[in-house]
Amino acid sequence: MSRRLTAPPDADFDARVRASFAKQGAMATMGATLGQVGPGRVVVLLPHSAQVSQQHGFVHAGMVAAAMDSACGYAASTLMPADAAVLTIEFKLNLLAPARGPLLRCEAEVTKAGRTISVADARCWQPGPDGQPSLVATMTATLMTVTGRDGVRH
Amino acid sequence: MSRRLTAPPDADFDARVRASFAKQGAMATMGATLGQVGPGRVVVLLPHSAQVSQQHGFVHAGMVAAAMDSACGYAASTLMPADAAVLTIEFKLNLLAPARGPLLRCEAEVTKAGRTISVADARCWQPGPDGQPSLVATMTATLMTVTGRDGVRH
Amino acid sequence: MSRRLTAPPDADFDARVRASFAKQGAMATMGATLGQVGPGRVVVLLPHSAQVSQQHGFVHAGMVAAAMDSACGYAASTLMPADAAVLTIEFKLNLLAPARGPLLRCEAEVTKAGRTISVADARCWQPGPDGQPSLVATMTATLMTVTGRDGVRH
Amino acid sequence: MSRRLTAPPDADFDARVRASFAKQGAMATMGATLGQVGPGRVVVLLPHSAQVSQQHGFVHAGMVAAAMDSACGYAASTLMPADAAVLTIEFKLNLLAPARGPLLRCEAEVTKAGRTISVADARCWQPGPDGQPSLVATMTATLMTVTGRDGVRH
Repeated sequence: MSRRLTAPPDADFDARVRASFAKQGAMATMGATLGQVGPGRVVVLLPHSAQVSQQHGFVHAGMVAAAMDSACGYAASTLMPADAAVLTIEFKLNLLAPARGPLLRCEAEVTKAGRTISVADARCWQPGPDGQPSLVATMTATLMTVTGRDGVRH
Repeated sequence: MSRRLTAPPDADFDARVRASFAKQGAMATMGATLGQVGPGRVVVLLPHSAQVSQQHGFVHAGMVAAAMDSACGYAASTLMPADAAVLTIEFKLNLLAPARGPLLRCEAEVTKAGRTISVADARCWQPGPDGQPSLVATMTATLMTVTGRDGVRH
Repeated sequence: MSRRLTAPPDADFDARVRASFAKQGAMATMGATLGQVGPGRVVVLLPHSAQVSQQHGFVHAGMVAAAMDSACGYAASTLMPADAAVLTIEFKLNLLAPARGPLLRCEAEVTKAGRTISVADARCWQPGPDGQPSLVATMTATLMTVTGRDGVRH
Repeated sequence: MSRRLTAPPDADFDARVRASFAKQGAMATMGATLGQVGPGRVVVLLPHSAQVSQQHGFVHAGMVAAAMDSACGYAASTLMPADAAVLTIEFKLNLLAPARGPLLRCEAEVTKAGRTISVADARCWQPGPDGQPSLVATMTATLMTVTGRDGVRH
């Protein structure tokens, strides 16, 4: 495996991720919350509501993307130095089923943790007709570690 | 060009797009509005606000994606029959600069209008330091025309 | 799971995939061969050679993409009716490490088998320094089932 | 525009690109050749042949991807320092029509030239029924500038 699941460089990654997530106005607006945080893994939860829906009443693809992008970015950040910022360079989302909810569970995992470039993959699940998790969407995100500058240029 | 810029099949596409956009709770939540609507072209406007921001104060990549995805979907829908639903199959977003605002202008254009599958490309602009439009993000979206069934399965 | 791992609709899918692969001049030119074929899963093998290399001597990203795209397309085709053609609508490739070889193993698996649209994910592996498989690249491909027409329009 | 179309940092970029392209065994195997080379723009030509075809006789999507990826990489390299290597981090390809040839013209242009990360977009054209260029495929590629190290890690 090219993934380095060594101990993350910052023992306080959980607190760090939670503090940063709390600053994301977009997540609060959407009603998204942070679930489990582990080294290289983060879960974001997004409940269905009229506020995040599209014209047919399903959760808007962009809202699904936002929750999954946050999960990918924070998953990557758990394996970065404490003073680094994580920047999404690009992501790709495939929508496999209408996002009905009632709760979307976005699970992100780091596929490659590089010095400069990391890649994370995420899957979004909802309860299926049989009560088992049913796949709603998949995402691959490419992220950049930014250190020693303002963290916004790339 | 593989793009068919013949007259759209539904003369009321403008009213149709605006009525559908008004039903997207997600767009209202974000503060996004619909700009120009033309055959194969739609503009969505997204102002910067704390409600759509990430931890550094820029517009969240997912919110940019949501506005651009809506623009792509509606651009494709202008070239579809009036009774068709448009479904986003997948999209890919590249982030080129931090989304500072104050106003993001998401311009989508149909690259290919197919019977079943359409492709739209979008660019998101913000005012640059020189006052000229500066590129924030690009998106390619693949969309499906759904007719004669419930419009949600694919 | 949204993946339907019921029996594939065509019992002869193995023979069908192998006959089709043998007609791909591109795979012969590259030196790629077909590995295991199962319902919803296909492996394509690509040995390193000067003929598929880029300027630094690694396997060209496009050649990796070609082998992975074939694996994804055939994985999807195993779950389709025997008379259907499979069409790649789009794919996205992330390159995680230089493709040194000596043998690239491209494993594709269907993530969603839909009536019209299927999604397959692939991973490309090579031996790592420790002899264990090391990840070279990941791909997500969107494929279309084409029946009752010439199989080339979409 | 976020694209910097200032003079490229290396006046010999044309010779540099051509020398590098000539070292790509994959391009020679495919029969691909280099067309125009300008600052931020590169054209790669790929003739249809049985050697690059898939089972229906069209050019294999992976071969189209390889030619377009080379075009994107070299387009980005024209705006990089002479001693830099360019690395493809990821790309996404949308296939809009079967690649019949007889000649595929892959035009790549840099959308953003960053210090570390660049983005290039490419379009692949073939003659349409009316003799006008008809769009076969579009690609967005993310590339990395690598300097001062071996050019293969990222």
